Amino acid sequence: MCETGKIKVAFSALLQKGGAYGPFDKDTTLAYNKVHTNTGDAYNSCTGIFTAPVAGVYYFTFFYHAGGHHASELHLFKNCEMIVRSSDHKTGSDNADNGGNAAVLQLQQGDQVYVRMLAQKHVWAADNSTSFSGFLLS
Amino acid sequence: MCETGKIKVAFSALLQKGGAYGPFDKDTTLAYNKVHTNTGDAYNSCTGIFTAPVAGVYYFTFFYHAGGHHASELHLFKNCEMIVRSSDHKTGSDNADNGGNAAVLQLQQGDQVYVRMLAQKHVWAADNSTSFSGFLLS
Amino acid sequence: MCETGKIKVAFSALLQKGGAYGPFDKDTTLAYNKVHTNTGDAYNSCTGIFTAPVAGVYYFTFFYHAGGHHASELHLFKNCEMIVRSSDHKTGSDNADNGGNAAVLQLQQGDQVYVRMLAQKHVWAADNSTSFSGFLLS
Repeated sequence: MCETGKIKVAFSALLQKGGAYGPFDKDTTLAYNKVHTNTGDAYNSCTGIFTAPVAGVYYFTFFYHAGGHHASELHLFKNCEMIVRSSDHKTGSDNADNGGNAAVLQLQQGDQVYVRMLAQKHVWAADNSTSFSGFLLS
Repeated sequence: MCETGKIKVAFSALLQKGGAYGPFDKDTTLAYNKVHTNTGDAYNSCTGIFTAPVAGVYYFTFFYHAGGHHASELHLFKNCEMIVRSSDHKTGSDNADNGGNAAVLQLQQGDQVYVRMLAQKHVWAADNSTSFSGFLLS
Repeated sequence: MCETGKIKVAFSALLQKGGAYGPFDKDTTLAYNKVHTNTGDAYNSCTGIFTAPVAGVYYFTFFYHAGGHHASELHLFKNCEMIVRSSDHKTGSDNADNGGNAAVLQLQQGDQVYVRMLAQKHVWAADNSTSFSGFLLS
């Protein structure tokens, strides 16, 4: 007998806000708004929050680009727990920063995963540079 | 009854051209030429182009290293559409740049995915530093 | 008839050593010690070594953050072969480096995959910044 009810869950989205995004006064969940893929509809591009439709082991990764005028710092959360982060210092005006990170997470149905940018930090939100992706491992 | 005809598609390759690669006068598809894995033979190391052998949801990621003497800029394409990119400015001679990005893509059979380096940009094509990988999500 | 005996193998771990880690006199396997996920128990957080429990195609990725006071250089190995690496030069004291890489690898049962930091290099081993993840593609 086969495993039944196999569903596919996979998404990929970009933060496209017209250029530099931030700094803001408080931590901000990034609502990656240009969606390439959202199989299973588990990623909400209005809120930036992925909600696990089924329990399972998932993979998540994010990448960002940032100008050097401000520092950058992004945190990947599972519910209220910070799982991995990527950051860079303020650098001279000629420079730019790239970063990213990834995690494999065991999620229960309804667990939420999202990326937050810390207060006083920024990212480059244009040119398909800053992305968030994830999928269910079968 | 089980899903049948499941195939495995997964590849990983490096750009090994003996050192700095570029800048060139025009945009160049990167033919990652040292292949670690090419299950399903969907990646062509002569052209640098991955061609989907079956419709499905795929994951792709690329990473690069570059010296700071020139700017770097790589774009991941699906057919004629730029999906994600990673770039960095020219920096001082003491510095180096790292970058990368990833995407989950719904592909039809025959869709092509590849990485292009823009004109006047460069990457470091040695030392197993600059890679392109992808696989079919089952 | 279905494929039977499907097992799930997936892990994700962080290097948390209280701050800057290295430089050391010799190459050092990074024992990523804070484990988020270790489905199938194939990753050993004491040694930093992933040992394939079954033959198959696997995906691995690592990301790191490093201060600019020393150079950074991490190599992903399959047994004795260096597969991919990521590195950055020493930069000024105001700067920081990010890097990472990924590979899809065909492994036989018992093959080992791990990340080594080269002698005289360092990484930032705190704040959930430096990670190593992998999983079996089904």
